Amino acid sequence: MQPVRIGLCGLGTVGQGVLRVLKRNGSEIARRAGRRIETRIASSRTPKPELDLAGIEHTTDVFQIADDPNVDVLVELIGGEEPARELVLRAIERGKHVVTANKALIAVHGNEIFEAAQQRGVIVAFEAAVAGGIPIIKAIREGLSANRINWVIGIINGTSNYILTEMGENDGGYGIALSAAQRLGYAEADPSFDVGGVDAAHKITILASIAFGIPLNFPGAHIEGITSITPVDIAYAGELGFRVKPLAITRATDGAIELRVHPALVPKDRLLASVDGVMNAVLVNSDAVGSTLYYGPGAGGEPTASSVVGDMVDVVRAMTVDPTNRVPHLAFQPDRLSDIPVLGIEDVATPCYLRMLAADEPGVLARVAQFLSDRKISIESVIQKYREVHDENGKRWVPIVILTHAARERDLNAALAAIEAMDSIRGSINRVRVESLDAAP
Amino acid sequence: MQPVRIGLCGLGTVGQGVLRVLKRNGSEIARRAGRRIETRIASSRTPKPELDLAGIEHTTDVFQIADDPNVDVLVELIGGEEPARELVLRAIERGKHVVTANKALIAVHGNEIFEAAQQRGVIVAFEAAVAGGIPIIKAIREGLSANRINWVIGIINGTSNYILTEMGENDGGYGIALSAAQRLGYAEADPSFDVGGVDAAHKITILASIAFGIPLNFPGAHIEGITSITPVDIAYAGELGFRVKPLAITRATDGAIELRVHPALVPKDRLLASVDGVMNAVLVNSDAVGSTLYYGPGAGGEPTASSVVGDMVDVVRAMTVDPTNRVPHLAFQPDRLSDIPVLGIEDVATPCYLRMLAADEPGVLARVAQFLSDRKISIESVIQKYREVHDENGKRWVPIVILTHAARERDLNAALAAIEAMDSIRGSINRVRVESLDAAP
Repeated sequence: MQPVRIGLCGLGTVGQGVLRVLKRNGSEIARRAGRRIETRIASSRTPKPELDLAGIEHTTDVFQIADDPNVDVLVELIGGEEPARELVLRAIERGKHVVTANKALIAVHGNEIFEAAQQRGVIVAFEAAVAGGIPIIKAIREGLSANRINWVIGIINGTSNYILTEMGENDGGYGIALSAAQRLGYAEADPSFDVGGVDAAHKITILASIAFGIPLNFPGAHIEGITSITPVDIAYAGELGFRVKPLAITRATDGAIELRVHPALVPKDRLLASVDGVMNAVLVNSDAVGSTLYYGPGAGGEPTASSVVGDMVDVVRAMTVDPTNRVPHLAFQPDRLSDIPVLGIEDVATPCYLRMLAADEPGVLARVAQFLSDRKISIESVIQKYREVHDENGKRWVPIVILTHAARERDLNAALAAIEAMDSIRGSINRVRVESLDAAP
Repeated sequence: MQPVRIGLCGLGTVGQGVLRVLKRNGSEIARRAGRRIETRIASSRTPKPELDLAGIEHTTDVFQIADDPNVDVLVELIGGEEPARELVLRAIERGKHVVTANKALIAVHGNEIFEAAQQRGVIVAFEAAVAGGIPIIKAIREGLSANRINWVIGIINGTSNYILTEMGENDGGYGIALSAAQRLGYAEADPSFDVGGVDAAHKITILASIAFGIPLNFPGAHIEGITSITPVDIAYAGELGFRVKPLAITRATDGAIELRVHPALVPKDRLLASVDGVMNAVLVNSDAVGSTLYYGPGAGGEPTASSVVGDMVDVVRAMTVDPTNRVPHLAFQPDRLSDIPVLGIEDVATPCYLRMLAADEPGVLARVAQFLSDRKISIESVIQKYREVHDENGKRWVPIVILTHAARERDLNAALAAIEAMDSIRGSINRVRVESLDAAP
């Protein structure tokens, strides 16, 4: 059979990983795919004389690849929303299949892109956009196709997971852990997309669509980063039997979908609690199989290239298929998506961890408990140890840590506003949701 | 589109699970597959008046399904080698696609079956044959298709894993744990295929083929069950920092493939060590992505049905595809399989745990160490606690536990034969291989 001709847009870490994998495993891949995959042309913004591009045309104009009649599959690794969106749409218009690792592109512009692809009869593959080298899109979209999916909970931002792991192990603060992550290449110079939760929100938006058959709804995602977590919170969580993990969650509730990214307390004995460092894991709960977990490296040149090249093989196989028989981009047939709304975060109910600084005087805890009780929020446990601090006026304050039972965010907000207004409470209350992972391994 | 018509052979736990899943999730599945999946006919050896088979023809002659011109896909859930083999070959001959959950059938007769399917241009799907509801065949065969796979290590027999977990937690012996497993429905009345390792060997034989592109080679598998493990071994392993797990292992070495099933010591801090009870997990190490892990229920009606029905959806999609563009049955194109030999177990090198009863007299440990050293086997650690036992003549014996560094089985056999021949060693030495899982999570 004819080789398949690839146009590689972007020669950064992942692009170089793709070239290495195709070179090293080319014959192994051809043994699987039944034909060779050839990189015909590659682009980067500036020439890359240090790379061995023997036999590969090079261009600094990425749109040349979209227009090249000798390219069958455009591989988009430039990242970001623009010009990636324009590039991918142009390639689709030219009848090319697309493989992309770009989560922002899919989460934000996926509906437009998939519609264009559908009309043109081409495939847009995006395994590498979520959880790097873990074949999680394939697992949910194809492996679990018999199931009604209940929820998906993932640790899908390696930078955040590394920082929280590091803070827990070395007792340093956020800044120290971030510096370590940057030194090791686990965090960008500007880490805000990772630690702020946007990256994980892009990914969970994609997983929600393929799990529940809804259009991509990135604006509906509730996003909180990990920067509010302190070593003190990690230590208290430990005393209570939990670890703090950066979670991305999507869950089907009655007539709505939860879609949220935030750090959370996870019981220590659950598998997700053992996923440390930069590693990723996705736990899927569905009606027939129950809970399955998928674990592996969520980033890095070759792990991401593994998914990109795996997509190439899939595309090669599906190219000649009648489009109606292909795996649908979002798992469900495009005319059978259902526009289930995202549940507002105020209506989400979870147990919650609360840490506050209270005046060291009688009756404060009782009044705090009363404000919670007024909103029907019950307390699971309290830690009040005598670790007093003195303020600038010599007044004594002590920390109180409370673990609540499940409470609606709206009720908790009201109760915490009332508690924060107390003279005997200093500053704001630090709160972290709890994911109890009942019925999960 | 026309519905796809299924013929369901076998109405046991899995068959009933398939019916339930198709009924409950039928519309969800059709939203994914683009057409409905209809069960036209089902078979069981005796009538099943207790089942709701409304709209489904019933037969006690399973071959009627293979011959039925109104069946597109034959689903084989009768288990065992015969008549399953004859049934599947007949269905293939009649041009039907086949979905099977039968690991014995695929491991032992897969080469013959896939050749027949290839010639007839039909698909034989077998996701449910390995690790129940975990989509591990799909993950390796498609998700990791860019990778050269180094090794696959799995806990893929839930019965054995439950028994070892139970023995570790409750300090009871093998018999007590087996009874508990049988009471809970985790073990058959005759558990020999599970605890003897044959079931896991069927499964790892299949995984070896799709990982390395070799024909199915069940006779090449080295098989040891878990029945030699005692609570004492589990306790000593714990002192040394290990847990005892029923592993199935296949690994590419220089020019050969390791293929073996046996219990092994696994370092406590590795993810595989935390896979308890009846749960399954498969750890795959490959060159591009590194280590990925897949975890979930390895048995049970609906988990297995999840994979069976998932295969149906795959078959529905691939039915109209030119066979040369389908995912090859064994991951690699049939004319590109390579017949790499299986490494004889005597040439496999692993660290080893040894427990022996030695006469309580000076110099015994020194002589034991010398016999090991004669074969270039070095010792990693020794536990010799004073827990003496007296034999029928009043002679005192003490247990010695030794952890060796990696040693070839052949050398270890020779050393242990020499040690067992010592007058100061009583009975035989209990030994368990160690899988150190270096470079694994």
